[in-house]
Amino acid sequence: MKALVFLGQQRIALEDRPVPELLAPTDAIVRVRKTTLCGTDLHILKGDVPTVDPGRILGHEGVGDVVQTGDAVTAFKPGDRVLISCISSCGKCDACRRGMYSHCAAGGWILGNRIDGTQAEYVRTPHADTSLYHAPAGIDDDALVMLSDILPTGFECGVLNGKVKPGDSVAIVGAGPIGLAALLTAQFFTPAQLIVVDPDASRLEVATRLGATTVLSSAKGDVAEAIRNLTGGRGVDTAIEAVGVPAAFELCESIVAAGGVIANVGVHGRKVDLHLESLWDRNISITTRLVDTAATPMLLKTVESGRLSPGVLITHHFALADILEAYRTFGDAANTHALKVIISP
Amino acid sequence: MKALVFLGQQRIALEDRPVPELLAPTDAIVRVRKTTLCGTDLHILKGDVPTVDPGRILGHEGVGDVVQTGDAVTAFKPGDRVLISCISSCGKCDACRRGMYSHCAAGGWILGNRIDGTQAEYVRTPHADTSLYHAPAGIDDDALVMLSDILPTGFECGVLNGKVKPGDSVAIVGAGPIGLAALLTAQFFTPAQLIVVDPDASRLEVATRLGATTVLSSAKGDVAEAIRNLTGGRGVDTAIEAVGVPAAFELCESIVAAGGVIANVGVHGRKVDLHLESLWDRNISITTRLVDTAATPMLLKTVESGRLSPGVLITHHFALADILEAYRTFGDAANTHALKVIISP
Amino acid sequence: MKALVFLGQQRIALEDRPVPELLAPTDAIVRVRKTTLCGTDLHILKGDVPTVDPGRILGHEGVGDVVQTGDAVTAFKPGDRVLISCISSCGKCDACRRGMYSHCAAGGWILGNRIDGTQAEYVRTPHADTSLYHAPAGIDDDALVMLSDILPTGFECGVLNGKVKPGDSVAIVGAGPIGLAALLTAQFFTPAQLIVVDPDASRLEVATRLGATTVLSSAKGDVAEAIRNLTGGRGVDTAIEAVGVPAAFELCESIVAAGGVIANVGVHGRKVDLHLESLWDRNISITTRLVDTAATPMLLKTVESGRLSPGVLITHHFALADILEAYRTFGDAANTHALKVIISP
Amino acid sequence: MKALVFLGQQRIALEDRPVPELLAPTDAIVRVRKTTLCGTDLHILKGDVPTVDPGRILGHEGVGDVVQTGDAVTAFKPGDRVLISCISSCGKCDACRRGMYSHCAAGGWILGNRIDGTQAEYVRTPHADTSLYHAPAGIDDDALVMLSDILPTGFECGVLNGKVKPGDSVAIVGAGPIGLAALLTAQFFTPAQLIVVDPDASRLEVATRLGATTVLSSAKGDVAEAIRNLTGGRGVDTAIEAVGVPAAFELCESIVAAGGVIANVGVHGRKVDLHLESLWDRNISITTRLVDTAATPMLLKTVESGRLSPGVLITHHFALADILEAYRTFGDAANTHALKVIISP
Repeated sequence: MKALVFLGQQRIALEDRPVPELLAPTDAIVRVRKTTLCGTDLHILKGDVPTVDPGRILGHEGVGDVVQTGDAVTAFKPGDRVLISCISSCGKCDACRRGMYSHCAAGGWILGNRIDGTQAEYVRTPHADTSLYHAPAGIDDDALVMLSDILPTGFECGVLNGKVKPGDSVAIVGAGPIGLAALLTAQFFTPAQLIVVDPDASRLEVATRLGATTVLSSAKGDVAEAIRNLTGGRGVDTAIEAVGVPAAFELCESIVAAGGVIANVGVHGRKVDLHLESLWDRNISITTRLVDTAATPMLLKTVESGRLSPGVLITHHFALADILEAYRTFGDAANTHALKVIISP
Repeated sequence: MKALVFLGQQRIALEDRPVPELLAPTDAIVRVRKTTLCGTDLHILKGDVPTVDPGRILGHEGVGDVVQTGDAVTAFKPGDRVLISCISSCGKCDACRRGMYSHCAAGGWILGNRIDGTQAEYVRTPHADTSLYHAPAGIDDDALVMLSDILPTGFECGVLNGKVKPGDSVAIVGAGPIGLAALLTAQFFTPAQLIVVDPDASRLEVATRLGATTVLSSAKGDVAEAIRNLTGGRGVDTAIEAVGVPAAFELCESIVAAGGVIANVGVHGRKVDLHLESLWDRNISITTRLVDTAATPMLLKTVESGRLSPGVLITHHFALADILEAYRTFGDAANTHALKVIISP
Repeated sequence: MKALVFLGQQRIALEDRPVPELLAPTDAIVRVRKTTLCGTDLHILKGDVPTVDPGRILGHEGVGDVVQTGDAVTAFKPGDRVLISCISSCGKCDACRRGMYSHCAAGGWILGNRIDGTQAEYVRTPHADTSLYHAPAGIDDDALVMLSDILPTGFECGVLNGKVKPGDSVAIVGAGPIGLAALLTAQFFTPAQLIVVDPDASRLEVATRLGATTVLSSAKGDVAEAIRNLTGGRGVDTAIEAVGVPAAFELCESIVAAGGVIANVGVHGRKVDLHLESLWDRNISITTRLVDTAATPMLLKTVESGRLSPGVLITHHFALADILEAYRTFGDAANTHALKVIISP
Repeated sequence: MKALVFLGQQRIALEDRPVPELLAPTDAIVRVRKTTLCGTDLHILKGDVPTVDPGRILGHEGVGDVVQTGDAVTAFKPGDRVLISCISSCGKCDACRRGMYSHCAAGGWILGNRIDGTQAEYVRTPHADTSLYHAPAGIDDDALVMLSDILPTGFECGVLNGKVKPGDSVAIVGAGPIGLAALLTAQFFTPAQLIVVDPDASRLEVATRLGATTVLSSAKGDVAEAIRNLTGGRGVDTAIEAVGVPAAFELCESIVAAGGVIANVGVHGRKVDLHLESLWDRNISITTRLVDTAATPMLLKTVESGRLSPGVLITHHFALADILEAYRTFGDAANTHALKVIISP
């Protein structure tokens, strides 16, 4: 089969690989219908993710058809159309029993990281019963693949951790795919203000289209002051960091209201300054989270019932044969305006 | 009357002052039976608290007898023995209605800060109906004065924010009065492990007596490693910072388990390093809080029912005439082993 | 002034009464701009509410202008346009401090019940600072009067108590004004299914227009079976009882899913059968609540931000001079299709 | 092997049966070290549990040694000493993923009910990885068997559902083993008042020994009035029903405070009267629950750390050969004062 393989820093290639086989009674083999690229894949490409060895097939998102299952798999059978979660969950360890699948003792984020992933014609999915989800009839593959990672990430790490409530003021710092996923799912809770901050005018346009009540360019002016003005000097109830750099996090520190929450979603490569000298008495919370995908059943219901249209995040489509071009397009989002790109094996 | 007055950096004196008078219909005048000193008073003395002007009577803790009430006070009358909360709450603003009295638009921590305080024979208490509490019969004044600030602080900022639960592992960094207040009240929730960290051997002895399951000297050895060993490598569910310096907070960052909470109680004078590069995917929460004293009614019930004995935190007693000596004793805790000192006007 | 006065069972009249005066320093006098009728007023008329003495001016909802305030009122001044909450809250007692204003030791539902109410040109509102709300600019009086009672009731007793969450299945039994208020505000949390049950076809039409995903006539067929079919045999996550009769509550018992909630909103005049023989092992919750109006600030923000349009509940308008006709219209909803009727003094 | 077999109404016998065998890759076979009798076993004996067919080996509690495991079992191996949970949980279905193991689509309470149970020398335990727990070293078998059912039941259905908090007033109606389990574990949360109600003087003595602050005989006097007097007229924050008869539940209705919770633990055979005419406006919750045993890991930690001593519930010991005598003793608790009886195969 064809597969996108990481060869080392800045080197990937489409290679021929054997179709994967069952290794454990809880495994399934899935033929991939659609997959996509994630900002994390770009991090891997830069050599920033030391757990990814050369030779690894990348990709942790996908929708496909089950073609084979291990003896202990009871919830899926060949022919089932499934959503592949980016997080593999054994369902048995302490972390899984607490719903914290991201810290599964035998799973977590391993697809396209510690084991071969979904940017291929076939993929082996461990702990299939607790890591795959039945694809609802009537939901197209493209929309569904948004539920592998990006929508649960925006929702769990940003919106749920951020405790967004009706009538609240919410600021989302960063309007990339993750920030926009938070923007879409924050609306589940009907906040009064949904302020989106980004330097890119094109992304701010998208944010406006997807429900932002105010967009602010971080390329010009004092964003913190603008947000204080928009909130009567109080700051926001929830500040969602969806970038992963110190400046974005520290902006959140300066705009969060007393009693509010900073929900970090961004992947950070270095420490940030936490200004406890001004925050110690502000009754705030700061949360971090690797997506657990525990909200996937809930998100599936919102998609099925037409409350959420994940397809709006998709900007480009490529065949698997053109995946290197897909990487270039996705990696040059400033010019291509790419958000999520769909790959069809 | 006699009152302890702040005169400027490192200068305090016992002075004669007029007995305070009612200024608003919601005020009460209270004759102070007992007061105490707080670490914050030492900060004021150093000149670290810019809101305290020279001439200010210090003190934000106390038990006393109501001697006069304004026309709108309905819950108290002259003769009532009362607990004076360190936080004044109007009961009417948005913050108060959310139980966040510390951020009361017309109150908060103002006693002994923006208005004259309790280290005196009499004190004017604003918003009396929502800032005083009836002293339960049978609870002595000394014990009760621990409920003005230190016990609600340890409980709300440390234990409640720290989400301590039965069976949990808890580490308290700092065994001063606040850390010990957290230690006492953490036991309301029956954690399995209560680890206390401090450099002072004498304070660690007290911690053991008051319920710590393990004490660790931060003066020797690698505390973080010791805590990881005590918790099977997992770290603690709750890490309570009760010091207010970067090293203590950063120790908390290194010992909190995935899914755990760092509850900051300490008053910080400068920023700390937040290691998001290792914490972004750890599913943790960090909380800050200025005590609200919203838990005071609950704490009173635990004291009344004999579940909590706050008097164990008291080490010294002084007459108001000797309050300068009390300040010296309290300020030299390393040698005097002072925890809380009671002042009797 | 003119006022609608209860004279005894089935007897009301529009009478001349003196303009009310301040009785306590926390009172305000409000000139009523708009008021409305509530199902509870019909109960009073029938003689079902023994706390209402003959001679009482009815009405507990309204929007008006402050004309006079007591000495201890700090948040309002003459000329302020205000929303009058149906619940008077002292802000000081144990219940108020817990946000349970409905059980205020010095208030609760007293307007138009134990003291004179709002169906008049002027009304005295006790505990003004904690029982009135500033009317946001740009929100018309008619819409605003829906926030005195009906919207907080539907939201707090039905939606919040019912723990409605994204993707959930919700059934609302009863499509009168209260059920419709629950229907409108349940959408704050983006449930997947919003099933409304009522015998009246006209009300079901309104429910469909206001967001119900399915409407079921309780006049025909087996509603419980229909709901089980709509939910894959599971039942609903939340069943909201908005009628106040045994049959409606018992329908909720038969349709709630394991792990679900029955949120009672209806005012009941007699006991119901609780089928613990089938519910004891179903992991359900049943909640009751008299509206606290603690959510009023949140609701005001959703109205201000255009997320909620309360005016859709209004079907009729009357001058105060015609209030007896308004009562007839409201009392004959089966024929007049009245939901909320606005009275303009 | 020897096993206690249900033969039909009021008929049980100790019979010879083949040692059970693995039926699924997720099964384990456990040699039983200790088991016990449950009130539910007496219900079965009376013929009240229609899911139990004649020929069934009874028993759903136990501690034992794993002797064989299926291919998909990864957390246990032969030789492991284990606690057998009364609830079998597949860990994969919707209910299990929500922590509601009692409603597991492939499990729930099946041991000694729909499949053969633990009152035997060996037992087959399905879904072993998610239904067995490693026995902590140093905890004796007798104490541990209390964690199969009775302690999680008292804790989850009574204490957790009852939202017991520090300083609260709690009443437990029924001082049988389940009520006493609630009494022991309610103390995890340090309530101020722990009132226990029972007609049996001997059980009330036990309750006093185990931490009740007040005991009340339901055989004499007006218990509801006594409880109102003990709580200043307010009633209790939490009323735990641990009997399973209408009178006990209705007592809870009459003693719950506004804003409080009635947590039903008892197994009910018929409907009760729910007095909504007086409760509709009382802001209460009523909860039901079949134990999920989701709290078992937490409970194990409290036992391991010495916070909980479950052995205090044990009154009698029998060899398996004498299990008929054990049933008689347990069934005649009024005279034998039996609480939990230990059976040793």
